[in-house]
Amino acid sequence: MTLKGQDILDGAQFTREELERIMDIADEFRARLQRTPSLDLLNGYVLATLFFEPSTRTRLSFETAMHRLGGRVVGFSSAESTSVAKGETLEDTVRTVDGYADVIVIRHPQVGSAKRAAEVAEHPVINGGDGAGQHPTQALLDLYTIRAERGRVDGLTIALCGDLKFGRTVHSGVWVYRHYDCRLILVSPEPLRMPADIVADLRAQGVRVEETTDLEAALAEADVLYMTRIQKERFADPAEYERLKGSYILTREMIERVNPDVTVMHPLPRVDEIATDVDSLPNAAYFRQARNGVYVRMALLALVLGRIGEGVWV
Amino acid sequence: MTLKGQDILDGAQFTREELERIMDIADEFRARLQRTPSLDLLNGYVLATLFFEPSTRTRLSFETAMHRLGGRVVGFSSAESTSVAKGETLEDTVRTVDGYADVIVIRHPQVGSAKRAAEVAEHPVINGGDGAGQHPTQALLDLYTIRAERGRVDGLTIALCGDLKFGRTVHSGVWVYRHYDCRLILVSPEPLRMPADIVADLRAQGVRVEETTDLEAALAEADVLYMTRIQKERFADPAEYERLKGSYILTREMIERVNPDVTVMHPLPRVDEIATDVDSLPNAAYFRQARNGVYVRMALLALVLGRIGEGVWV
Amino acid sequence: MTLKGQDILDGAQFTREELERIMDIADEFRARLQRTPSLDLLNGYVLATLFFEPSTRTRLSFETAMHRLGGRVVGFSSAESTSVAKGETLEDTVRTVDGYADVIVIRHPQVGSAKRAAEVAEHPVINGGDGAGQHPTQALLDLYTIRAERGRVDGLTIALCGDLKFGRTVHSGVWVYRHYDCRLILVSPEPLRMPADIVADLRAQGVRVEETTDLEAALAEADVLYMTRIQKERFADPAEYERLKGSYILTREMIERVNPDVTVMHPLPRVDEIATDVDSLPNAAYFRQARNGVYVRMALLALVLGRIGEGVWV
Repeated sequence: MTLKGQDILDGAQFTREELERIMDIADEFRARLQRTPSLDLLNGYVLATLFFEPSTRTRLSFETAMHRLGGRVVGFSSAESTSVAKGETLEDTVRTVDGYADVIVIRHPQVGSAKRAAEVAEHPVINGGDGAGQHPTQALLDLYTIRAERGRVDGLTIALCGDLKFGRTVHSGVWVYRHYDCRLILVSPEPLRMPADIVADLRAQGVRVEETTDLEAALAEADVLYMTRIQKERFADPAEYERLKGSYILTREMIERVNPDVTVMHPLPRVDEIATDVDSLPNAAYFRQARNGVYVRMALLALVLGRIGEGVWV
Repeated sequence: MTLKGQDILDGAQFTREELERIMDIADEFRARLQRTPSLDLLNGYVLATLFFEPSTRTRLSFETAMHRLGGRVVGFSSAESTSVAKGETLEDTVRTVDGYADVIVIRHPQVGSAKRAAEVAEHPVINGGDGAGQHPTQALLDLYTIRAERGRVDGLTIALCGDLKFGRTVHSGVWVYRHYDCRLILVSPEPLRMPADIVADLRAQGVRVEETTDLEAALAEADVLYMTRIQKERFADPAEYERLKGSYILTREMIERVNPDVTVMHPLPRVDEIATDVDSLPNAAYFRQARNGVYVRMALLALVLGRIGEGVWV
Repeated sequence: MTLKGQDILDGAQFTREELERIMDIADEFRARLQRTPSLDLLNGYVLATLFFEPSTRTRLSFETAMHRLGGRVVGFSSAESTSVAKGETLEDTVRTVDGYADVIVIRHPQVGSAKRAAEVAEHPVINGGDGAGQHPTQALLDLYTIRAERGRVDGLTIALCGDLKFGRTVHSGVWVYRHYDCRLILVSPEPLRMPADIVADLRAQGVRVEETTDLEAALAEADVLYMTRIQKERFADPAEYERLKGSYILTREMIERVNPDVTVMHPLPRVDEIATDVDSLPNAAYFRQARNGVYVRMALLALVLGRIGEGVWV
């Protein structure tokens, strides 16, 4: 298995073998960074970060990953400072940057934008979030965090809570979890349920999927509770939002009463769906989860640039 | 000949010997980057990129050039995040940054701004575009691209098409082409003709210059067709713009019918003056042209920082 | 004495021994950079620059300092391109970035923001300006500049002129000067006087402090004149601003007539409180002062990262 030269576009593209390999390499990088501030593996290589939408974690962790491997970074964090402001198409911007950099990470508001970029670029393109579409590197770091926090993924019950209709992190995530013997509990208000075709696909592939509106019931069963933001603007009826939102605020009291062993994750940023009194519990894995993004993205960058070969460790 | 410590302000400043030297060094860098991702020539040096106006190619290719030579970059891509927002003058900003960096690249909306910067800076200042003024590094990479695509510059017929009145890339370009035995065909709508004093100057220096409004006629004669954007807002009469714009859209059909051997260039960004069906023709040199900006800017950075001496290769 | 792992939050936190040590290390870095473009001391380390407000000098000199020590930089220069735009709290942004970087510099409009950041971060946090609060690294580079320009700090008369009520640079500065045998002359219009509690505190610690509205009288006595901006919007009565502002414009004529030996400093940016005809006088130290920010910030970064130990030079 090699990912050299490959684009990373959606969570569904990985085999279980590839997922395990990425996790193992991320583990190795994490261990090495405890002994030294950086490695030389990508010395001289250039990453381009094309961020047409705001980002803190994805952009900064990719840039940190590149620096920790000895590489360099060029790019932009908003489209206003670029020729997009003069009417340049996404394809032309990508073709140009493809002539400068060895690998490209792109975040763009349109679904399918990363795929369009990959079609015109010769170098590997990594999708850093394409609107309501996919966010595959988030799925990978989520999987890595589950493995790191619980020691395994097989056999776990994972509850996904919040906006399952529009949330790209959960859409990418389920395509990764399906390779494992997991039970998924989907917790959302009725208007924000996981799209029916995704649920049907998962079941067709043998994944155990349950749906509920009851967070506490799901929490009681879960090894991992993955919270996401519920966005007020998604509701046609504001009164329904007001009625529901309280049900989806996770508190310290709720964890201690219902399931003191649960691992709590969140892709961040959060607004108020996890009370800050949860932060100091050992259950709160979300800041470790953010940090894991560096190790997983280091693994991806090293793999797509062909600096880690088949069965060969660097 | 040495450019050590010199400012790069306009296309007219170079001798033919200097142009050839820059091209040769750019060639050498291109060859070396095919064998290794980066060089160590500017290890430890710092480039400041002061971009008061949007840019994709100029900023990112300068930054890539610095990184590929082992150097570092500080700077900004829009003035809003700087003390210019608090009323600081260009001169004070430049004097400050001159204390941090070893070389400065500046893009600013006012004609003459790069010259003002050079007057207060002790380190070399490179003009990355000063409004409707000059864009000398674009002229250099254009020249380099012509040489790379056609094997020579002497003896060629170069057609420049589009907005020749306001376009700084062509204004810088003609001062470079005049050192070669070229025939220039200037193709533009009447309101966007090359300023008469520039044409007169070129002729006084022995350059063969013709002017026309007919793109197809010029295409038939040209070895190189250099397209630029025609900006609607430049026309007093919108009806005239509508009438003319169609004449200046280059299509695949037109190339194949009129001159299948022509090399097509464009400084980018384009809007619609080159149809996208041209992109896959071997004639389409504009994305290679953008990439050449890295090699040419590497050469300039190494030269002005004195890391390539008289007759000495590193 | 070691600053390893410490936060740098306000000017009052330093002992005289610490101040001297920082100055000595900055001196050594300045000397080394005259022989080589950069050092390797922070090779592999990552600095995060979190700038929620505009900055030229603080951000770019910290980034230059990190690069000149061989380190790397990630961050942002405005909050709009980050998840703060999605409602993320300062604490959550800092906790996240704390997982990526080895040291954090933060500028934020709220007083106390850097302290809040330091409370949640495990890595050292350096205050790059918290609203009208503190700006300790500015105070350090000011002290360094006085020492470099005058050869000593003890025994000097330092006049601080302008907005002493809201100016964070002078607020941080006085807490540093109090460790030296200085005489402070505070020059400001009545509405912009130094807060009475600060003056009382200084006097209680034995610092000689005088207050005046008369710039020329202070200039006549001063070894160092530290100018700051007077902000029009701070005045309730516009007429009073108009009446006063002329008194606080330093000109070449005034220096030559009143005190040709004075050292003139300014944190920059200036608007018009120092006439540009002062710039070419040897007295004008403000651009050297800006450059000194690089050496002082190199010293701080190396110290808080533990790369310069107790009594041990690298």
